[in-house]
Amino acid sequence: MNSEQIDTAPLEPALYLFPVPLSSGPTDLVLPEHNIRFLMQVKHFIVENIRSARRFIKLCDRSIDINTLSFVELNRHTNPLDIPSMLDPLTAGEPMGVISEAGCPAIADPGADVVALAQRKGLKVVPLVGPSSILMGLMGSGFNGQSFAFAGYLPIDRDARNATLRTFRQRIEREAQTQIFIETPYRNNKLIAELAEALPSTLRLCVAADITGPTESIITRPIADWRKAKYDYSKTPAIFLLYR
Amino acid sequence: MNSEQIDTAPLEPALYLFPVPLSSGPTDLVLPEHNIRFLMQVKHFIVENIRSARRFIKLCDRSIDINTLSFVELNRHTNPLDIPSMLDPLTAGEPMGVISEAGCPAIADPGADVVALAQRKGLKVVPLVGPSSILMGLMGSGFNGQSFAFAGYLPIDRDARNATLRTFRQRIEREAQTQIFIETPYRNNKLIAELAEALPSTLRLCVAADITGPTESIITRPIADWRKAKYDYSKTPAIFLLYR
Repeated sequence: MNSEQIDTAPLEPALYLFPVPLSSGPTDLVLPEHNIRFLMQVKHFIVENIRSARRFIKLCDRSIDINTLSFVELNRHTNPLDIPSMLDPLTAGEPMGVISEAGCPAIADPGADVVALAQRKGLKVVPLVGPSSILMGLMGSGFNGQSFAFAGYLPIDRDARNATLRTFRQRIEREAQTQIFIETPYRNNKLIAELAEALPSTLRLCVAADITGPTESIITRPIADWRKAKYDYSKTPAIFLLYR
Repeated sequence: MNSEQIDTAPLEPALYLFPVPLSSGPTDLVLPEHNIRFLMQVKHFIVENIRSARRFIKLCDRSIDINTLSFVELNRHTNPLDIPSMLDPLTAGEPMGVISEAGCPAIADPGADVVALAQRKGLKVVPLVGPSSILMGLMGSGFNGQSFAFAGYLPIDRDARNATLRTFRQRIEREAQTQIFIETPYRNNKLIAELAEALPSTLRLCVAADITGPTESIITRPIADWRKAKYDYSKTPAIFLLYR
């Protein structure tokens, strides 16, 4: 089957998971053309935020008439009781799409709830290719990609955070498992300073910032070097990776 | 900056990590056009396997003269002492590319060693977007994407494997951490049968098979249902995910 045959085949009813660019810029920098062709054939969307989903769809194809599409929001304000009916169009045989604010749906956003529901109902789920700061940070870090864990945000409470860092060190030591986590941008510099103070000099920290963006930078250094380094990540989305 | 401006800008010297499709078919199903434009500007490649890297480059652009490109192999047969000189073209200011057999370089292949070296030398590393069965399996599973771990292959030894499964159960229970692992295709059916026997009925197992391929299927079921299910994954690359 070549691209054109795939083009003309009608889209199978399924829940398509559409990744969204992490940064501004043309979509062909970070999304396969295939995703756009699929997006054009979907009329019913479950989205984290209607405004940003509309903006994304317009970016994919300016000629699209947004008013012919249906959107329902799924985010932390959603009542869980409202989720089941969201899949009604798919149950009736219509392809549906999930679009989150940025990156890959269902990775670190509420999209996972509707995917879980589709799985329980035996409906087909089709993830599409797109940018993931977790995966791209890991690729660029030089750390172990055969064993790694993503932990989301670190706890804010000091004791809980120290306990988490102890667990990270154990798992790096005993399991050779790369540890990945995130922080809110305005706290990035403070986090790096804390890590530099709390962790052994020889452990390595990678800061992967503005992935796919104009100021992208992925820097791996021993903790000892981060202590002396000059940096400012206070306005950049960044992901943090630790390894020995 | 739009696509054309990016097109005409000369490629900055860096180590570019080029993902490769997981399945046959046109590259625009799984790779952004941007990757191909970058690939066309790179002359020096570090690859897991020269034959498959050449095939991939030809797939991206049939008109390319492969004989003008230089390739060096990095795989489990490589002498670690040979790695440092691999980056000589980049040190001299030429962009370089890393290409693995399938999927994202440096995630579960030896590419990570040369990325680590580039990081130690302070050379720029640029990961590009592409298909990852780990990430796409996670998206499609409906499991927790805020906390997850990838463990590669399970131990073959029975006691060690049982110990690993106990650890998985603990981390699912205490940390709500999705557990992800792989197996060699001919052992897939046996692994599912073992998991179905060893794990509690209510735990959920997702089998994500042939991701991006013509027989792609991502199925999440409680262990109790896998015990009764009919399946044959013996010839399909698959990834396994466990969650509560």
